Amino acid sequence: MSGPDAETPSAIQICRIMRPDDANVAGNVHGGTILKMIEEAGVIISTRHCNSQNGERCVAVLARVERTDFLSPMCIGEVAHVSAEITYTSKHSVEVQVNVMSENILTGTKKLTNKATLWYVPLSLKNVDKVLEVPPVVYSRQEQEEEGRRRYEAQKLERMQTKWRNGDITQPILNPEPNTVSYSQSSLIHLVGPSDCTLHGFVHGGVTMKLMDEVAGIVAARHCKTNIVTASVDAINFHDKIRKGCVITISGRMTFTSNKSMEIEVLVDADPVVDNSQERYRAASAFFTYVSLSQDGRSLPVPQLVPETEDEKKRFEEGKGRYLQMKAKRQGQAEPQP
Amino acid sequence: MSGPDAETPSAIQICRIMRPDDANVAGNVHGGTILKMIEEAGVIISTRHCNSQNGERCVAVLARVERTDFLSPMCIGEVAHVSAEITYTSKHSVEVQVNVMSENILTGTKKLTNKATLWYVPLSLKNVDKVLEVPPVVYSRQEQEEEGRRRYEAQKLERMQTKWRNGDITQPILNPEPNTVSYSQSSLIHLVGPSDCTLHGFVHGGVTMKLMDEVAGIVAARHCKTNIVTASVDAINFHDKIRKGCVITISGRMTFTSNKSMEIEVLVDADPVVDNSQERYRAASAFFTYVSLSQDGRSLPVPQLVPETEDEKKRFEEGKGRYLQMKAKRQGQAEPQP
Amino acid sequence: MSGPDAETPSAIQICRIMRPDDANVAGNVHGGTILKMIEEAGVIISTRHCNSQNGERCVAVLARVERTDFLSPMCIGEVAHVSAEITYTSKHSVEVQVNVMSENILTGTKKLTNKATLWYVPLSLKNVDKVLEVPPVVYSRQEQEEEGRRRYEAQKLERMQTKWRNGDITQPILNPEPNTVSYSQSSLIHLVGPSDCTLHGFVHGGVTMKLMDEVAGIVAARHCKTNIVTASVDAINFHDKIRKGCVITISGRMTFTSNKSMEIEVLVDADPVVDNSQERYRAASAFFTYVSLSQDGRSLPVPQLVPETEDEKKRFEEGKGRYLQMKAKRQGQAEPQP
Repeated sequence: MSGPDAETPSAIQICRIMRPDDANVAGNVHGGTILKMIEEAGVIISTRHCNSQNGERCVAVLARVERTDFLSPMCIGEVAHVSAEITYTSKHSVEVQVNVMSENILTGTKKLTNKATLWYVPLSLKNVDKVLEVPPVVYSRQEQEEEGRRRYEAQKLERMQTKWRNGDITQPILNPEPNTVSYSQSSLIHLVGPSDCTLHGFVHGGVTMKLMDEVAGIVAARHCKTNIVTASVDAINFHDKIRKGCVITISGRMTFTSNKSMEIEVLVDADPVVDNSQERYRAASAFFTYVSLSQDGRSLPVPQLVPETEDEKKRFEEGKGRYLQMKAKRQGQAEPQP
Repeated sequence: MSGPDAETPSAIQICRIMRPDDANVAGNVHGGTILKMIEEAGVIISTRHCNSQNGERCVAVLARVERTDFLSPMCIGEVAHVSAEITYTSKHSVEVQVNVMSENILTGTKKLTNKATLWYVPLSLKNVDKVLEVPPVVYSRQEQEEEGRRRYEAQKLERMQTKWRNGDITQPILNPEPNTVSYSQSSLIHLVGPSDCTLHGFVHGGVTMKLMDEVAGIVAARHCKTNIVTASVDAINFHDKIRKGCVITISGRMTFTSNKSMEIEVLVDADPVVDNSQERYRAASAFFTYVSLSQDGRSLPVPQLVPETEDEKKRFEEGKGRYLQMKAKRQGQAEPQP
Repeated sequence: MSGPDAETPSAIQICRIMRPDDANVAGNVHGGTILKMIEEAGVIISTRHCNSQNGERCVAVLARVERTDFLSPMCIGEVAHVSAEITYTSKHSVEVQVNVMSENILTGTKKLTNKATLWYVPLSLKNVDKVLEVPPVVYSRQEQEEEGRRRYEAQKLERMQTKWRNGDITQPILNPEPNTVSYSQSSLIHLVGPSDCTLHGFVHGGVTMKLMDEVAGIVAARHCKTNIVTASVDAINFHDKIRKGCVITISGRMTFTSNKSMEIEVLVDADPVVDNSQERYRAASAFFTYVSLSQDGRSLPVPQLVPETEDEKKRFEEGKGRYLQMKAKRQGQAEPQP
């Protein structure tokens, strides 16, 4: 509560106004926004503590967050107060306790939103695989150390147990071969937020294009595992507008490779999640061409795409047609001089 | 010097310094960043033009971007200059030509980066399904109108042809039934950028948690199609650090529903795309609990999850176990007092 | 069409649509967003100028912003036009004048929002503690140089005087009474990330100003619990640069209230968390003036501040002095005509 206090360097407080982009369409702040603020407080206080004695410099890396409950919702316009303090240190880890309060600065009302416990481990800046020792904290009561040790042992045990608990979420095709379409195929979902939209609640075309390029770039990087850059974008048609609150799925698949370029088809589908009355629809589509660059910026050969299904072979031939047509067009006209 | 120029209302110029977040790890600005700036210039100039006569107010919506080539790469620290002008108007659409130059402000070097042509359509603000008429531009040479009309007809034809060209990118399970696990299952890929990372090139734990919550929220919204909020997060274990330049896949699937809550399992996998030597690995995992809220903030009943496969049934039972254990724990202890 | 104009290299124009995240809940764009755009224009034009002759490469770093008034509020959906030009150069500093206009692209209405004067100093890229020489600008009228020199001498003097003016903000009192300084006093900490910084690892002056305005806004909202907007910013002095990896603390406290305005002092301290060798230092300081608006945009009376301690009373009197001086100045001169 006391702000950065000179006498208790092991306490810190962060506050920030909640903005439209921090919340869903109904105005409730996303749990993820709060978790992110909690971690920001945690990493500052634990990095500061681990560097408080002379010795090798380090950065504190998050190892575990204990179960946390969201006790009351926070809204746009409220101020989130995140206060953190170090409550226990073992030889190689730091426990940070964080409290989050919401304050309505118009009415003065304050509420406890949640409490969280985070564990950090200090990694050496010189060698990030080396865990350093943590300077001990001073406890005001003897029992605090004993209670902390019990929490430390409990989380350590649970951490071990859970490491292998989770299976994979089934992927459509398992272990696809390199250079196939399935190998690099990628898709991204994006929950449309206020800052993606015009005042009138449609997604800016530019936001959609940026996401399309992002997916195409991931497909290209997965295919050739080098530094890749956009070389050209085929005509993009926007078939229908996308409204605020939609979830959009942007999918990319490689359709064709020449010696030094890759063509990636990107489709954008919009899903009005909350509005049951409307079906998912195709909002936009385009072909992106990427090239692969060496470290000194020269274009590299690209691994050849191996189409497997009939559809993939058909799309490969269509891509080849577009490639040859564009090549002929370029040779037919004088090169544009910047 | 001149501010928005009264004499040439049909021209605009935007410029901005390119930042680390605009570029990939090698320092090349993403094509998507440039496309986004191009569209911002286009929407300003075309909205301004379509409202330049008295009459119904409208917003210009992007309908098509012509093929564009990226002639030379742009780098972090350079200034992008985007200049746009209106080059043709049909009865219901506006053509905008955009040029992008990169300027190195340390050396003074300037390069043409790309040229683009965008088509906008004005939609009424009162009724967004109504297309308004576009005020005509004045051409300085007679031929400009004729050339513009040819471009207009050509794009109209191609637009019609391509509308139905693209098939769906195959989804793992086709047409899943509502309330099944497959129906709401979602995954998101994210290319780790500089602002996701600490100074030392690891992804902030808070960034990962925010993305995990985002996926869990999309799964919950798809399942119950209402306003949903995070109620609690189970312990999150960070099994391994994620480095700059990775692509992370965050997958969420519903595991259990009680009367008024949903449990969603979220897995985070990191894929060091460019670095061939390292395999994809599990970076973090957790269970999120969401509740559904009515418009006045009261909790709503949740549609019951229908597990189909043996694995889904097993996970449902495990989720039920966690739910009952937590419920018993809550009833056993005095409710925490904020 | 022409990109950065070859004939007037000392002028630049930036424009951008205002988005929900740029504004408060009532839709008024934050003063801090505008200050950030102003600084972006300033840093481009001054860095370009300082590198315009062959010689050692440098980056222009913000040293001071003169007092600036916000003449009319800007809203979401409007386009901000920021135009900057170099108006004076001394041996080691550059003066940049910036005008901001708001344009409603639906109605075509344009308004002057504010004017600002910024001072930059060129630091060598090889040795960031070395200040380089500035190439002289060419004045179109003889008097311009003389007037510029007078402004330069005046700011130099004031800069010296203010360097040690500010005491620390301390936070001792719990449960403060409404309308006291302690009641609304606020501070925010921010971990400097890559996207806050220039390529050379300093925090952009505009990022610091945006955070200063955010804290001042929280203080003002706590004090009067209404929709508040930035009315003016006193001269901001940047005493020292802030490096990547620092944690910055931005503290705000109310110093004075008139019938319809509040003055808030904001202090910025930088703390090099990881680097033990350097002490926490004062990086910047300024006074912000806020006004309170009713829902229809009219200015409201402000609750009177109740200074308690001797220091608070002293600062109140100093604030009153600044207020009366500014009032006299305004009445003495013809109101500036947009």
